[in-house]
Amino acid sequence: MDETRSFSIAGSGTYLPRREVSASELDELTGQAAGATAERFGVVKRHWADQDETSSYMGAVAAQQALDEAGWDPSSIDVIIGACGVMEQPIPGTSLLIQRRLGLGDSGITCFDVNATCLSFLQAFDRALAGFALGEWRRALVVSADIASAALDFSEPEASVLFGDGAAAFALEAEGPHHRIAHSFRSYGDASEACKLEVGGTRLRPSDDLEDFLARAKFQMDGPEVFRATSRRFPTFLQELLGKAGTSVEGLSLVVPHQASAAALEHLKRCLADGHRKTVDIFANIGNQIATSMPFALHRARMDERLTPGEQTLLIGTSAGVSLGGSVIRW
Amino acid sequence: MDETRSFSIAGSGTYLPRREVSASELDELTGQAAGATAERFGVVKRHWADQDETSSYMGAVAAQQALDEAGWDPSSIDVIIGACGVMEQPIPGTSLLIQRRLGLGDSGITCFDVNATCLSFLQAFDRALAGFALGEWRRALVVSADIASAALDFSEPEASVLFGDGAAAFALEAEGPHHRIAHSFRSYGDASEACKLEVGGTRLRPSDDLEDFLARAKFQMDGPEVFRATSRRFPTFLQELLGKAGTSVEGLSLVVPHQASAAALEHLKRCLADGHRKTVDIFANIGNQIATSMPFALHRARMDERLTPGEQTLLIGTSAGVSLGGSVIRW
Repeated sequence: MDETRSFSIAGSGTYLPRREVSASELDELTGQAAGATAERFGVVKRHWADQDETSSYMGAVAAQQALDEAGWDPSSIDVIIGACGVMEQPIPGTSLLIQRRLGLGDSGITCFDVNATCLSFLQAFDRALAGFALGEWRRALVVSADIASAALDFSEPEASVLFGDGAAAFALEAEGPHHRIAHSFRSYGDASEACKLEVGGTRLRPSDDLEDFLARAKFQMDGPEVFRATSRRFPTFLQELLGKAGTSVEGLSLVVPHQASAAALEHLKRCLADGHRKTVDIFANIGNQIATSMPFALHRARMDERLTPGEQTLLIGTSAGVSLGGSVIRW
Repeated sequence: MDETRSFSIAGSGTYLPRREVSASELDELTGQAAGATAERFGVVKRHWADQDETSSYMGAVAAQQALDEAGWDPSSIDVIIGACGVMEQPIPGTSLLIQRRLGLGDSGITCFDVNATCLSFLQAFDRALAGFALGEWRRALVVSADIASAALDFSEPEASVLFGDGAAAFALEAEGPHHRIAHSFRSYGDASEACKLEVGGTRLRPSDDLEDFLARAKFQMDGPEVFRATSRRFPTFLQELLGKAGTSVEGLSLVVPHQASAAALEHLKRCLADGHRKTVDIFANIGNQIATSMPFALHRARMDERLTPGEQTLLIGTSAGVSLGGSVIRW
């Protein structure tokens, strides 16, 4: 099967919340010794959303930036795909709320959301490329926006200081100079307890047992278990993906990973030839923004002119569930 | 553009919660006069999920039924798409939880979720067909499961008695006798306030203002506003969809709609030639199961041998947001 999908990036944008939280503030919040957040977790600062900086607000600002660069007539957009780790609210989807904020609420542009936790963008991007390849769509807006700070448990430094908020958006067009040459996505539900946010769906309800509901309202992560579930599968996964792309680690000039943690990024860099130079790492100042990390890092690489024509980039990451996902793109 | 996508249904299944709630019980719950739930809303009974009947539990039972009929080797499944109106929990996605419950948690089968509220199944089905057309996947399991009863406000009969719980799943295969010959999906975020569930995402947090959080923890619907937002757009939408399919209302032998409400179903039947005979209506006993309604009704039609080879079926519905969506299938 030919997995090559051609596309172009017509524009991209990001949004970072105005409020900055320093590593020393995080030390205090998490009850750690001074300097621990920086030393143990490689954190310089985080950006956290204020009340008015909702997921759809941040997503719409990033999307407008992408649209401004693209210069598209809004009526030419075929689809808006929301690609958040966690939605702004269960009903309706974040894509619809973003469409309205963009002033396109009467446009009829198809809106839906794709969820694969931290890999939502990668999966949504792949769905957009599939739509392009079939001629269903010519112009797609893929938007990630996440507010991790909404559900952090500060009694668990490892499950809290890693995370930051923000949004990133890409205006993508069918055909063009870029080629996604291979894609892989593997899921292992056996590890679904390792990384979870239980409150906010159909199972736990405040009317049943409020105390229990509130006790489970924070994100929980068993870091070592997530590492075990993903790292043992990672080498084979990467090898298969690169094999499908007909390339090798040496054939990659850039790696844009999900920004899971400083430790995960270090592990990834060591798996790659010249990994420290090739890998986009924005963890210290931006953090793990759930689904937003990958497009945020890709936008940064694009702004830094690191998406070099003819060269190959690997988008790669892991997500709660767990899933492993990656794409190889030749620019 | 040719929108024809060939596929086959290898199996399908459903799950209905064991607990039955009669119309007279609903009269009492909602403070209405005896008989009002039946007379005003056309409700005979509802099925509501008990604590152990979670979204992923119900989804897995329906999925196993579909897989049993298909007789597939589980390792041949390429993708499991969760297509719920509301997820079981925000992290990880319901598709992963279903994968685990099916005993496939170490399989690596791709899992992700698609959300378009009540049209999640239609959108997920379309994404599966796109994957088939590109040769990305050959076998897909699309599963909807919803527990509307988790967030009903009984002080609003119109926003509560309509809804029921359940799950439905389809085992779909690339190529085969069936052809999806046209598809349309239009979204209008201007009406996103008309139908909403605010609690369960990144915006409202119990730690900010618990009283406000609890006050907004129920589903809210402005029925007349939803009707205005969708009905004025419906005739054009239907005409365009049938035009793309090269057919007319007369050319349809069956209509499988989202089961929004008795009033909405009646409105739809009147828009169609011979609509009362052609339309699958399971509202009285099953209700509006959010995203599960459409696949549940489709499964019923399949069991009743109403998916006649060579004849055309319209899948159609509206969802919160609002969106209008439909597909024409020739069996």
